[in-house]
Parts: sequence; structure tokens; C-alpha cells
Amino acid sequence: MRFAKGHGTENDFVILPDPDGELDLTPTMVAALCDRRAGIGADGVLRVVRTKALGVDLSPDARSAEHCEWFMDYRNADGSIAEMCGNGVRVFGRYLLDSGRVAAREFPVGTRAGARQVSVTGEGAITVDMGRVRLMGEGAAVVAGRRLRGQRVMVGNPHLACAVEQPIEEIDLTTAPSLDSEAFPEGGNVEVYRRVEPGVLQMRVYERGSGETRSCGTGIVATAAAATGDDSAASWTVRVPGGECTVEIDDDGARLTGPAVIVAEGSILPGALRY
Amino acid sequence: MRFAKGHGTENDFVILPDPDGELDLTPTMVAALCDRRAGIGADGVLRVVRTKALGVDLSPDARSAEHCEWFMDYRNADGSIAEMCGNGVRVFGRYLLDSGRVAAREFPVGTRAGARQVSVTGEGAITVDMGRVRLMGEGAAVVAGRRLRGQRVMVGNPHLACAVEQPIEEIDLTTAPSLDSEAFPEGGNVEVYRRVEPGVLQMRVYERGSGETRSCGTGIVATAAAATGDDSAASWTVRVPGGECTVEIDDDGARLTGPAVIVAEGSILPGALRY
Repeated sequence: MRFAKGHGTENDFVILPDPDGELDLTPTMVAALCDRRAGIGADGVLRVVRTKALGVDLSPDARSAEHCEWFMDYRNADGSIAEMCGNGVRVFGRYLLDSGRVAAREFPVGTRAGARQVSVTGEGAITVDMGRVRLMGEGAAVVAGRRLRGQRVMVGNPHLACAVEQPIEEIDLTTAPSLDSEAFPEGGNVEVYRRVEPGVLQMRVYERGSGETRSCGTGIVATAAAATGDDSAASWTVRVPGGECTVEIDDDGARLTGPAVIVAEGSILPGALRY
Repeated sequence: MRFAKGHGTENDFVILPDPDGELDLTPTMVAALCDRRAGIGADGVLRVVRTKALGVDLSPDARSAEHCEWFMDYRNADGSIAEMCGNGVRVFGRYLLDSGRVAAREFPVGTRAGARQVSVTGEGAITVDMGRVRLMGEGAAVVAGRRLRGQRVMVGNPHLACAVEQPIEEIDLTTAPSLDSEAFPEGGNVEVYRRVEPGVLQMRVYERGSGETRSCGTGIVATAAAATGDDSAASWTVRVPGGECTVEIDDDGARLTGPAVIVAEGSILPGALRY
């Protein structure tokens, strides 16, 4: 089985080229691939499959993906399915470009959240259309015993983005923040951020089910949207532990720009994974 | 740059074939390779080099390695050098066998601790001669606020192996145990273990500089030696979080037998690593 490994701001992925949809990618196989010691190790798997070879009906939300040549079949490290991943779709785009599967500098990628436009911008950077971002009003979380107020933001998945005054390095994100279950019936990611310069935000994120991570694409967008508020348009640089992205927000939605690197490619040896 | 990734009881390694010693493997490059998100990710690097191509003089302790065709140039994930690694040398042996670099079922591997005899035993298992093990007398460590007594054991590197009565899952190894600095001037690894059946030990390990790990080859040997005490010979099965090994101890020293798996092989792409 061929694979590649790549990352976007240190959110890392095992990429499985499967153009004709021949791979039976089970949750246990995904978990074995993502195991950082007994497998390859990653935050998730990106299966690279032609949309017409998917073999399953897309949900109404994803219908716009039907006309994309390539589909990002994204799986979390535990084998579960996720609709979108802002860092993953940049790495997916980089892989399509580097492997010669697309030739254009701008192309759509199918995802479970619908078609997403991907384009190559500056040196090494990739921009992805993240669609509409919805501000849902105020919310709060208890983070290490302290109540933080923030903005609830929907970027496909739910976020609470909390502006803080103190240096964000000082905030304890070793345990899961507690979210109001009425406002977040399925939980959510919690971002803490601070404006460190005009137009520049510094952010850390606690992802539900994963803990603190080096980066979260939708979290970066949620934070930029919370900092923008009801203004019609803004552009932000967002620094996370794993690197730096920029977010442009206007009436059309949000566009996320950041690095995407393919580190290695090769083969997984028969019988080597335990699942 | 070609690489492979493998593990022994979930102690994992990036393997770099460099038969003619052409690779200038700097500490920052090792750290970049071992970075679990921006690199390949591993507990260490095994450079596969012909002993005659090493290009450096071996220390007096390692002179016996001079006559080995292949040398295991082992590096810790932080780029520092280590003399030996009981799980690493099994994975190294497996790589030599699978890649056709050795044809015999038993062969010596050069290490900074000298020549080590490696042999293929049962299905998938590899045995490595770990040399003499020295019992150094009693010692103690404070583990999560509680004083544990144990045996000081030298297996190339220093260990304190503490027999406990309680289920070892209950022991808190989230913080570094505190060792007596007189008995352990350079620190050491701390093992907690319990005899769960006749001939079977269950063990967990805190490795200095790394924290709790899934397995530690020298720690498994140290634990078996502590459980053997002054008896002349014994054979133990040692269960660790990452799997299971057996240790035979007699007047000739210790032999460690356990699994060694090559998971993947491929190429690291030019310019992809940050260092």
C-alpha cells in the first residue's frame, strides 16, 4: 500500500492514494495507520479518491462535491469520519499538485462539507475556501478552573473562541475545558487567543477528543471570525504553536492560507500493521 | 534520502540505510526526522552503516565492533548519541535481514557498546545478546511522592528496578521519579514491576529524558536481572505496555528476545524537513 506523510502547521496526515476506490479503509485500519509507534503516526488519514469512485451517496450538504474530480475522504486518528479539516485540505491540495494529479493552480476538492476551492498562492502556501462562518453569540467555558467568556462560532464544526488578556502561554490546557452543554450539545473546540500586534492574533486550541494540538484549521478561522466580529471584512495573521496562517474574511466567507508540506512517501509493508 | 520505519514492542525508529557512510547526520537533522508531526516521528534513529565506513575511532569499550560488517549508529530523538538500545538492535537486525544485507540467521552487529550477537528465533522474534548485567545493590526512588526501594542494575546504562505489590497500572509515572544523586550521578531509568505469574513479570518504565515509554529494552533486562537476584540463571517473560519480551540470564550474561517489525519504507522528500 502506497502512502505519503505531510503536515500543515504541524497538523499531520497519512495520505493514501486510492484513485479508483479500491481500498476498504476500515476504522481499525485508520487507527493502526495513525498509531504513532506501531504505525506511521498522524492526526488523521486523507484518502485520495476520485469522487466518481467513492461508491457512496453524498449527503445533501456535500452535493456540490459531485462535480469535483478528487474527493478528500478524511478520517480522524480514531477511525471516525469528519466533514472537513482546514489543514488537511491544504495538504490534500499540495499532494494533488506534487503528484501531478492536477495541473491547474486553482481547483476544487470534494469534501463531506461540499466542494472547496483550493489555490496555490505564495511560495509553498496554499489557500482554501472555508465557506461561510457563522457567529452564534456569546458563550463561556471553564478552563482549568477559570471561567472564560468567548464567541461561539460555527465553521462546519462548533468552536468557542475566547479572547484573553494574559500571555496565552500561561493558560493551562492540559485538561478538557468544560462547555455549557445547552450551547454545545455535541461539545466543541475551545480556542484562547490574544491580539499581539495590529492584525496579528496568537492562539492555542483544545480540540474535543484530542486535547491541545499544534494547530487546528477551523479553529484558526473561528478565532479570526471572532476577532472580526460583525465587521464586514478583515484579514488576520494567526500564530499557533505549529506555525502561522492567514485568514481573510468577507461577505463571501473565509479563506485560509498557510503552508502544506509533503515530508515523505513510500510503501506500507504487507502484514506490518496490527488491526 | 531513503528511510524505513520500524518498532520493537512499540519503541520506534527511523532507519537510515547509509552503507558507505555518506550521510552527515547532525543532531538537528535527527531531531527533525524524529519530530512526530513535522517529520517522520520516532524514539530514535538507526543509521545502517558499514563499520569500516564509520570514519571515527571506536572507544576502547567498542573495539569488538571493529570486526562486524554492520554498525548500528544509534541516536536518541533529541540528536544525542546512545551506546545501545535493546529494542533498536532487534529492529536493526530485522532490517538487515529483510533488506538482504545479511543472509545468515545469526550475525554480529557493531554498537558503541561493542559487538552484539543477533539471531532470528521464532516467528518474527529476534534475540540479541545484551552482554553482562551488573547488580549494584539496593537503591530507592521517590515516585509520585512515595518512596520505592529497588535494585540498582547496570545494563550499559543505569536502572533502578523496583518490585511493587500493588497493580502496576495504579502507579503514577506522569512525573520524573527522584533518584538519589549519589547512587545515580547521571540519573537513570526507573522500572516498577510485579510478578504476575510464575516466570512472568509485568513492568512499566520511566526513561530519563523521555518520560514513561511503551517499552525499554535495557529496562526489561534490568527488571529480569533484579527479579533473578543472585541466582545463577533464570528465564523471564516481561510484559510492557507495548508488548512482551523474554529474557534469559545465566553466567554468560542476558539475552533479550522479542518482536521487531519494519512497518514502512520510502523516501524523505528534498527540503521537506525543517532543521
